Amino acid sequence: MVIDHICIAVKEIEEGIGYWERVFGYKQMTGIVVNSLQKVKVAFLKKEDSLTIKIIEPLIENVSLVNFVSRGGGFHHICFKCDNINEGLKELKEKGLITLVPPQPGEAFNNHNIAFLLARYGLNIELIDTDERAETIGGV
Amino acid sequence: MVIDHICIAVKEIEEGIGYWERVFGYKQMTGIVVNSLQKVKVAFLKKEDSLTIKIIEPLIENVSLVNFVSRGGGFHHICFKCDNINEGLKELKEKGLITLVPPQPGEAFNNHNIAFLLARYGLNIELIDTDERAETIGGV
Repeated sequence: MVIDHICIAVKEIEEGIGYWERVFGYKQMTGIVVNSLQKVKVAFLKKEDSLTIKIIEPLIENVSLVNFVSRGGGFHHICFKCDNINEGLKELKEKGLITLVPPQPGEAFNNHNIAFLLARYGLNIELIDTDERAETIGGV
Repeated sequence: MVIDHICIAVKEIEEGIGYWERVFGYKQMTGIVVNSLQKVKVAFLKKEDSLTIKIIEPLIENVSLVNFVSRGGGFHHICFKCDNINEGLKELKEKGLITLVPPQPGEAFNNHNIAFLLARYGLNIELIDTDERAETIGGV
């Protein structure tokens, strides 16, 4: 289980992408995809061998995330990639990381599962078992 | 300029290290070093080819960070490694990321420079021009 990406939540996804491209030299590597279950727009950015950045913008019905980005947004979660979501969840539960954030399991793209957990120190953790980026190449 | 690590601020560094080791399978790769200029205790954790995690605990005189960890702590900053701090700062200023956070330039270890900046979306950004981890191997 290794870190796949970190996620930044912003009010306007195009603006967030533009900022990371302009200031940090990242490149948008996927389209902007609407995930209607997670209620976010999503895009992935990459730069050489630097950590992948995911930028999300809440859909209007995602009240908690709309509140978060209205207060400025920013760092949202760390995503770990694991071979199997259910085994990953079981392992983390056994180790004491047990607060699941609904909906569970969440759907990422093309029926792939994801899960969100709340870790100590207020850290939101996402688990994925697939290449979430590859699923968003097409975008909208 | 690529991401070197992300930093998590906690109230008790030994507890934070233990949590990341137990739950996420990371290993402490350095000692715990006191940086008296930045007013933090610091340790680095690593896991296979996963992103490096830095854990910090504020010294008592670091009032803003003591407040942050008293409210639970958590994600603190993203660190970019660059060849030269002054050139990195100049580049980021030209690109509109201009809010420097004192002390500037900050001292990491063994007279190496670091700089802290505040980016959009409330993101704290650290710049380093050295292997900050290597400087902390000895620890205290």
